[in-house]
Amino acid sequence: MFPKPYSLRLYVPSDLGADLGVVLDKGQSHYVATVMRRRDGDKVALFNGRDGEWIGQLQEVHKNHCLVHVTEQLRPQIEEPDIELLFAPIKKIQTGLIVQKATELGVASLQPVQTQRTNAERLREDKMALQALEAAEQCERLNLPTVHGLIKLEQALAALEPDRTLIFCNERLSGNSPKEVLSNLPSSEKWAIVTGPEGGFADEEIEMISARPNTHAISLGPRILRAETAVFACLSLLQAFQGDWV
Amino acid sequence: MFPKPYSLRLYVPSDLGADLGVVLDKGQSHYVATVMRRRDGDKVALFNGRDGEWIGQLQEVHKNHCLVHVTEQLRPQIEEPDIELLFAPIKKIQTGLIVQKATELGVASLQPVQTQRTNAERLREDKMALQALEAAEQCERLNLPTVHGLIKLEQALAALEPDRTLIFCNERLSGNSPKEVLSNLPSSEKWAIVTGPEGGFADEEIEMISARPNTHAISLGPRILRAETAVFACLSLLQAFQGDWV
Repeated sequence: MFPKPYSLRLYVPSDLGADLGVVLDKGQSHYVATVMRRRDGDKVALFNGRDGEWIGQLQEVHKNHCLVHVTEQLRPQIEEPDIELLFAPIKKIQTGLIVQKATELGVASLQPVQTQRTNAERLREDKMALQALEAAEQCERLNLPTVHGLIKLEQALAALEPDRTLIFCNERLSGNSPKEVLSNLPSSEKWAIVTGPEGGFADEEIEMISARPNTHAISLGPRILRAETAVFACLSLLQAFQGDWV
Repeated sequence: MFPKPYSLRLYVPSDLGADLGVVLDKGQSHYVATVMRRRDGDKVALFNGRDGEWIGQLQEVHKNHCLVHVTEQLRPQIEEPDIELLFAPIKKIQTGLIVQKATELGVASLQPVQTQRTNAERLREDKMALQALEAAEQCERLNLPTVHGLIKLEQALAALEPDRTLIFCNERLSGNSPKEVLSNLPSSEKWAIVTGPEGGFADEEIEMISARPNTHAISLGPRILRAETAVFACLSLLQAFQGDWV
């Protein structure tokens, strides 16, 4: 369907280069052999976050182990924009959507934060990492975003480097047109976005975020977006104004 | 939690004005009485797409019928931007997400289109209308988007007024930075967006869309977005550059 030499694309931790052999792990081998029904000689694209994207040929396909003979490079590694997403996790399905879409939209790291109105005790970091990996394979990214464990909002803010430009999605703000704000940011190569939980940030949280130097609040229009929708919107805007959609 | 005088907000078809009585239908009455456990005297916000947003008091709360005594106007009616979304429906869950998020992001109408690679025979127009209504109630919109039935892509394109500016999200395009394109559109008050199915548009479809006058293609970056993600991204960008987020 696509003008590309593969329809199967996998992340592997191994080094990639011409004539190297890569062993797929058990989960991937099951997927390749049983779910996707590939056979010896079929092609697969591989990426590892360092060496770009490579094409390889499947050898010794078995549901427990597969070998890939790496042949040629399709694309060199490119840098993704350095965008860190601080988000308040919500219900399981919506958190999954945030991980998936934020990966497609090119975040470098996902930092779930505990806010006063966050209620997500059972956040599964391993599950989120898997969702990010699957989204990266699907969207043709050349690396994986880093998935962090839940920490408090104040800790996450304190951990941001001072020269990282923070975009604060403040749903109850009027004015602060995103076009105006995002067009006139100080020059930067490191960004972060912070979005709130269902029900919004508490007043003290808004003050705390706003008090951080190098923080720029934007409004996302007159309708009240759901927490996950605000993430999708803000990331799209940052990519269009400052990231790799420019 | 919010600084607003209600936490329940409903769309009603009836006229709204001071001292009018509004009868809620059976579904809404069940929701109000049984799900939300409201009682006589509790407040509810109402909107009808014409008269702005009003606050009223519940009277005679019953699971089959409720009466609302409308008291005062909270907000006058405002115009939403005139944005029509042409989208290829995908799996049920994703189509539901598109309807919900597009409503939050302020589309005026939703037009599902049949493309060569669309496979959605059982599209439920009534279900989509309900999803749009619920999203409108939740996001504090003052009207509902119009939900249309599935038609062929060529019919949908032919039905667009010639002076409606069409934004074409072409996933396999490089260049055509959205910032560049959306900043330099001819002045317009009517927009449409067209996004493709999983697997993308066929070559003839790309030609057909591109051949329409007043059509502007944008790329959404180097990663391949899922069909629904492209909708969220493109709508956010159009609102930020030309719509009511400006």
